[in-house]
Amino acid sequence: MTGSLVIAGLGPGAEAMITPEVAAALDRASDVIGYIPYVGRIAPREGLRLHPSDNRVELDRAVHALELAAKGSHVVVVSSGDPGVFAMASAVFEAVEQGPAHWRDLDIRVLPGITAMLAAAAAAGAPLGHDFCAINLSDNLKPFDLVLKRVRLALEADFAMAFYNPRSTSRPHQFASVLGLLQAVAGPERLIIFARAVSTPAQEIRVVPLRAARPDVADMRTLVIVGSSATRQAGRFVYTPRRA
Amino acid sequence: MTGSLVIAGLGPGAEAMITPEVAAALDRASDVIGYIPYVGRIAPREGLRLHPSDNRVELDRAVHALELAAKGSHVVVVSSGDPGVFAMASAVFEAVEQGPAHWRDLDIRVLPGITAMLAAAAAAGAPLGHDFCAINLSDNLKPFDLVLKRVRLALEADFAMAFYNPRSTSRPHQFASVLGLLQAVAGPERLIIFARAVSTPAQEIRVVPLRAARPDVADMRTLVIVGSSATRQAGRFVYTPRRA
Repeated sequence: MTGSLVIAGLGPGAEAMITPEVAAALDRASDVIGYIPYVGRIAPREGLRLHPSDNRVELDRAVHALELAAKGSHVVVVSSGDPGVFAMASAVFEAVEQGPAHWRDLDIRVLPGITAMLAAAAAAGAPLGHDFCAINLSDNLKPFDLVLKRVRLALEADFAMAFYNPRSTSRPHQFASVLGLLQAVAGPERLIIFARAVSTPAQEIRVVPLRAARPDVADMRTLVIVGSSATRQAGRFVYTPRRA
Repeated sequence: MTGSLVIAGLGPGAEAMITPEVAAALDRASDVIGYIPYVGRIAPREGLRLHPSDNRVELDRAVHALELAAKGSHVVVVSSGDPGVFAMASAVFEAVEQGPAHWRDLDIRVLPGITAMLAAAAAAGAPLGHDFCAINLSDNLKPFDLVLKRVRLALEADFAMAFYNPRSTSRPHQFASVLGLLQAVAGPERLIIFARAVSTPAQEIRVVPLRAARPDVADMRTLVIVGSSATRQAGRFVYTPRRA
């Protein structure tokens, strides 16, 4: 009885952005594991067990998935976006590293997905069209000083930047600090994009210069993109030139 | 007669990584425009005109696409990976900005795709599991000193890094310089991943410490990922922990 574990990306929300290989893995699954709203995107069917779990229990969820796969189940762990970008794949490999040796021999595969920054960038134009970085602004798992240090160095490198998890109700002041740093270093005219609920019917894309950016526009469903010094507008589109 | 222009990402190579929305756009297209090998991935059918063109003519190709769309064609410009990451979307918006005013009112949409770094990361484990950057190593469009500056700052920020276009036969020494910088700053044990022809039957994934990295392993079909200081191995998988 040989089980398997697939860590799959569901993309940012639209069904039409789920890759065929992810759809096929879900069709073959016996068990789907993930955060409640992501498991909620999976259609129930006979023979499929759904295991929704709360946020902030990533490691427990990963251990559960590995245990089921080790017993012979065909498990799919679902993430929003891409599972390798601020999502479940790292938690699974952390559990593999800490777990029993035989977990390393399991059939484990990661299936990429459209991560939020790519869908947000596409909806706005091409703001990530040249060198860029992706930073998780949440300080659940790292000190906030490290976030600020990375933003400062990214500005010096003149990267465009994508910010994941910019703001939560438990830490409303931190995104305001990041915005303040951006305004001080990049100046008032640098473009910033607030992309909310990307690819869903509730999608909202706002493009403003930093001087007009307000921290309360962002929430946990928002992906923020900050342009490089070269990022510009062409009509309703925002793009970063290829020679940036 | 209202035309349209879709800039679509075909993903890194596997058919099963092409999103349904991109497949649907191709089904509706009257004209497909792109670099020869990417247009070569599109199945011919009646009523579909294929316009393959050579590399390094991105702006001409963008103008051609906009002209056809302005005349009423349903044009799809195809890129490998994601069109917004070192690909055709920026060239199209550059052409829009420089072109006649009515081009700004065209129906233009960007459809994201699985960019090479996400597929390469998934094949190796989850090396982009925490903050990271993406740098185009080609100096066709920027000075090589800027490449080195960005790599230096990315090391200081302790980002994992994805390098696109690491090496071509016309500039074999530059990737050697980047490797030298990485070895000097990050030390000999830092992990580097050479992912070639990702998601195709020819896929090769090599993971080595920097001390064993040789520049001639990379070519233009290779995506290189360099770990952060926290990137580690768990069995055959490479991952960057979430708390990095």
